[in-house]
Amino acid sequence: MTEQSHIGFIGLGAMGEPMVRNVLAAGFSVTVYNRTSARTETAAAHGAEVALHPAGVLAPGGIVLTMLADDAALQDVTLGDDGICGKLGPGGLHISLSTVAAETSRELAAYHAESGERFLTAPVFGRPDMAEVGQLNICVAGNDEDKLRARPVLEVMSSGIWDFGDDVGAANIVKLSGNFMIAAACEAMGEAFTLCERHGIDRGAAHQLFSNTLFASPVYKGYGAQIAAGEYQPAGFPMILGLKDLTLAGEAAAAKQMPMPLADLCRQRLTAGLARGRADWDWAGLAQSASDDAGL
Amino acid sequence: MTEQSHIGFIGLGAMGEPMVRNVLAAGFSVTVYNRTSARTETAAAHGAEVALHPAGVLAPGGIVLTMLADDAALQDVTLGDDGICGKLGPGGLHISLSTVAAETSRELAAYHAESGERFLTAPVFGRPDMAEVGQLNICVAGNDEDKLRARPVLEVMSSGIWDFGDDVGAANIVKLSGNFMIAAACEAMGEAFTLCERHGIDRGAAHQLFSNTLFASPVYKGYGAQIAAGEYQPAGFPMILGLKDLTLAGEAAAAKQMPMPLADLCRQRLTAGLARGRADWDWAGLAQSASDDAGL
Amino acid sequence: MTEQSHIGFIGLGAMGEPMVRNVLAAGFSVTVYNRTSARTETAAAHGAEVALHPAGVLAPGGIVLTMLADDAALQDVTLGDDGICGKLGPGGLHISLSTVAAETSRELAAYHAESGERFLTAPVFGRPDMAEVGQLNICVAGNDEDKLRARPVLEVMSSGIWDFGDDVGAANIVKLSGNFMIAAACEAMGEAFTLCERHGIDRGAAHQLFSNTLFASPVYKGYGAQIAAGEYQPAGFPMILGLKDLTLAGEAAAAKQMPMPLADLCRQRLTAGLARGRADWDWAGLAQSASDDAGL
Amino acid sequence: MTEQSHIGFIGLGAMGEPMVRNVLAAGFSVTVYNRTSARTETAAAHGAEVALHPAGVLAPGGIVLTMLADDAALQDVTLGDDGICGKLGPGGLHISLSTVAAETSRELAAYHAESGERFLTAPVFGRPDMAEVGQLNICVAGNDEDKLRARPVLEVMSSGIWDFGDDVGAANIVKLSGNFMIAAACEAMGEAFTLCERHGIDRGAAHQLFSNTLFASPVYKGYGAQIAAGEYQPAGFPMILGLKDLTLAGEAAAAKQMPMPLADLCRQRLTAGLARGRADWDWAGLAQSASDDAGL
Repeated sequence: MTEQSHIGFIGLGAMGEPMVRNVLAAGFSVTVYNRTSARTETAAAHGAEVALHPAGVLAPGGIVLTMLADDAALQDVTLGDDGICGKLGPGGLHISLSTVAAETSRELAAYHAESGERFLTAPVFGRPDMAEVGQLNICVAGNDEDKLRARPVLEVMSSGIWDFGDDVGAANIVKLSGNFMIAAACEAMGEAFTLCERHGIDRGAAHQLFSNTLFASPVYKGYGAQIAAGEYQPAGFPMILGLKDLTLAGEAAAAKQMPMPLADLCRQRLTAGLARGRADWDWAGLAQSASDDAGL
Repeated sequence: MTEQSHIGFIGLGAMGEPMVRNVLAAGFSVTVYNRTSARTETAAAHGAEVALHPAGVLAPGGIVLTMLADDAALQDVTLGDDGICGKLGPGGLHISLSTVAAETSRELAAYHAESGERFLTAPVFGRPDMAEVGQLNICVAGNDEDKLRARPVLEVMSSGIWDFGDDVGAANIVKLSGNFMIAAACEAMGEAFTLCERHGIDRGAAHQLFSNTLFASPVYKGYGAQIAAGEYQPAGFPMILGLKDLTLAGEAAAAKQMPMPLADLCRQRLTAGLARGRADWDWAGLAQSASDDAGL
Repeated sequence: MTEQSHIGFIGLGAMGEPMVRNVLAAGFSVTVYNRTSARTETAAAHGAEVALHPAGVLAPGGIVLTMLADDAALQDVTLGDDGICGKLGPGGLHISLSTVAAETSRELAAYHAESGERFLTAPVFGRPDMAEVGQLNICVAGNDEDKLRARPVLEVMSSGIWDFGDDVGAANIVKLSGNFMIAAACEAMGEAFTLCERHGIDRGAAHQLFSNTLFASPVYKGYGAQIAAGEYQPAGFPMILGLKDLTLAGEAAAAKQMPMPLADLCRQRLTAGLARGRADWDWAGLAQSASDDAGL
Repeated sequence: MTEQSHIGFIGLGAMGEPMVRNVLAAGFSVTVYNRTSARTETAAAHGAEVALHPAGVLAPGGIVLTMLADDAALQDVTLGDDGICGKLGPGGLHISLSTVAAETSRELAAYHAESGERFLTAPVFGRPDMAEVGQLNICVAGNDEDKLRARPVLEVMSSGIWDFGDDVGAANIVKLSGNFMIAAACEAMGEAFTLCERHGIDRGAAHQLFSNTLFASPVYKGYGAQIAAGEYQPAGFPMILGLKDLTLAGEAAAAKQMPMPLADLCRQRLTAGLARGRADWDWAGLAQSASDDAGL
């Protein structure tokens, strides 16, 4: 580790916090920033410096990672008054881990380029427990040199890095596609398990079969267990963020003039769930609509 | 192997034919019947006797397996003029492997019971290549004694046997639920890969990511490879049979007064595919509608 | 009025009963039958003879009208033990006013033809209040001679008779299409008025505008008033019958390999309504689902 | 006519141009502006003054009407460099006839208020032929005094003025609701007429029945005639604008957390139509998707 041994990290939520601990454990020196400062205590206890504003995490020409809830938050820490854009400096690299619109990435890349700064898109798949053990999957898109430079720090967080070319928006599209596919799987299980239940079959028994055979995979095992049990609290990823991602997917489809009826259905389900007061449910709870409509 | 060493087997289609070969290879003596007699040649070459009508496969009080395309075919070989019902004899066991309505199983069980005959529902998951290597998954429902008696012959065809209780219709519902979930996954991949494609991302690259990580499972790998390539011929399971299964799932839902909007969407897709002349496509080709509607 | 001055009439429900009174008022002699005999009292008080079984309404070679709840009831009074088929006699004419499947009409026409009897399909549009004042609209399909012969009695019940050719199933398809269009209009108003309500706009004010301008028509005025008020009781036409009709429309579409996504949506809404215990609501109450899903 | 005898009018498209002629014919003095100046020739020939930029149409403290294609165009003529906001002057009244988002109206009202200017929302229902004969229906929302002042000029264009209260956004929501209801009616007719066609029934005959009885109204007559004929050119209102309005309706629903599955379906249809190269079709052509999916 040479000049890359310092990492700035912005956003210590349920995902960012364990990611930072893995970066620290790998021997990087890290400066962190979080809007709610109380969230920085654990990172500090593990050896991180704590900055008081976004630009405070920077080492000139260094690397900064951002892991934020939505487009607005990412734009704010990048382009806001204390934002990193223009202060990161020539040769500096902004690695954006958040789930945002492709267009947002393209815009931020352009702003950074005006100051000779680099921007790499690197959204992550995996829930907090996977972040904890450094087993995320990361989609990268951007400049090849930037990908090489990002690799050491991304590797300490992940079990797989997947390259989607040089358009920085591409990795966002893939990430949104994946989240859509998760929602679709939840809807499918919600309808299937409810059909079984209405015919006197145990939801858990159906889940056991499917998640150990045809659909033996993390999504069907993990989300499926919630849906089989009909228990959606506490939320690993709340409905409102799921709706945000499905809305972004819908906008990405509209921008290219393609209908996505299943994505529309998932968005209807999430919207109905929120309207029924389920803001603190995990987004897998979109599957509950199938039961609602069956009078259960 | 004692009195169960003889097996009657009706229906030598793409699934039934390799299943019979595995039963023969395990040392059972087998008598087969198929409506189209040419399909019996391979089984005969492997040592099966060939009957000229359905009831010709029976050994009194023995076991007969049926693997047929739809409810009408199953009803015909069971209740038709040369059908097995009433000729199987007291203690005889009809093991129904076909994908049919729960109500059909319940009716046939009742007819058999009038003659002191038994009926066990045992629909199978897996495509012909899995049948070939005896790695199917089988859902069973019915009487426990019948399940015990069926186990030896089912085991030579399968890697897993899943018990769904004593209602003979239950295994059908689970099978229909599973086929619905496969169709739903195809629709999800169709929309997701088309979104990627419209944004300049290689469909295959997206499929590689998803089928090796979040969705690493037989359905997403196998069907997903077809959908990524956009190639749906030759058909492992044709659209028309997929539509039959989704229609049965819809009727099972209607019988219990529950809406299944995603099942409706899948049925719309299969119907549109058939209307566009894709009768010889694999049912994974329902995913093509997402591309059709994007003008691709 | 000559040989046609006698009319047999089977089915004195909410629609049939006022229809019979109009036929009586026009000077026809009428014999009626209803499964629940209490329903015949009013007709009797207006001069109808009352038969004790379906075939009891017949005059040999005469005309009989049937107005029944569904396919099974129509088949029963036609083909059942005391049914009219074969007893109506050569030259007799069965005019079927019920909303049933096209295939049912074709089958019954064939059965009647075996005895030299005639069958004309004549489903009606209009609710009980329109039946009362003889302002129904009637779709006819079948033989031209039969249509001429039917005209006098149909005219006393209707303000319009619409000819759809010689396939007796055609009038059924048109009737099912119309009922689908009514359901679709209810869903559209349900969503539109709920959108207005959620934005602080009075549902009734929106209804006033639309039903007096762009959509000034009986369906938008009548059903729309229910939907604006959110009051669906008492039921003019209950949800369960609406679901029956939408199911028949769906089967007619499936038979010709065409998807009807909006019909599927309407069926989902009616199914959800019934699952929520709204069996005694008017079918316009399918519009309530839009409010349910908005958390209202 | 006193101080209101002068009218500024911005936007001489297919709707605005005949509206202006009616205003001129009623005796108002009018100054017009259109981005494409050639479109002003007819108005000039009828006596209008022609301005070279938006603010050029103003009389200090007077009335200006705007009739534009979308939110961006309205914002541009209001807030842009040569925009009317701030130049209209104290007591001036901006009457916005365009179909735009409620939020856009609220924002523009606030900007105008900063300069002591007034803003009234007054979107119109009706196609160019109705504009020609001054038979539009207009929804108004805003301040009561402004409505009184607007009435003389609105009356020369309309056969009905409908008041939706003092929230300037309310009239936009009603307008978007109405356009959604039109799209829904087109989809319903598309499916119904295609079902008839597939069963051998003439689409036009079905349309004649429905548009003269249950659905006897301008929308079912006018749009229905296009859908029965399957002819969607030339476009009275092109698909792309229909999609814009359905997208605005969807956003208005999302803002209040309510699903609109039928609006989603209509948007899918319009999107698919555009993807198939139908940009120059009337938006009633969304009904063609039902035929596309039936293989017609």
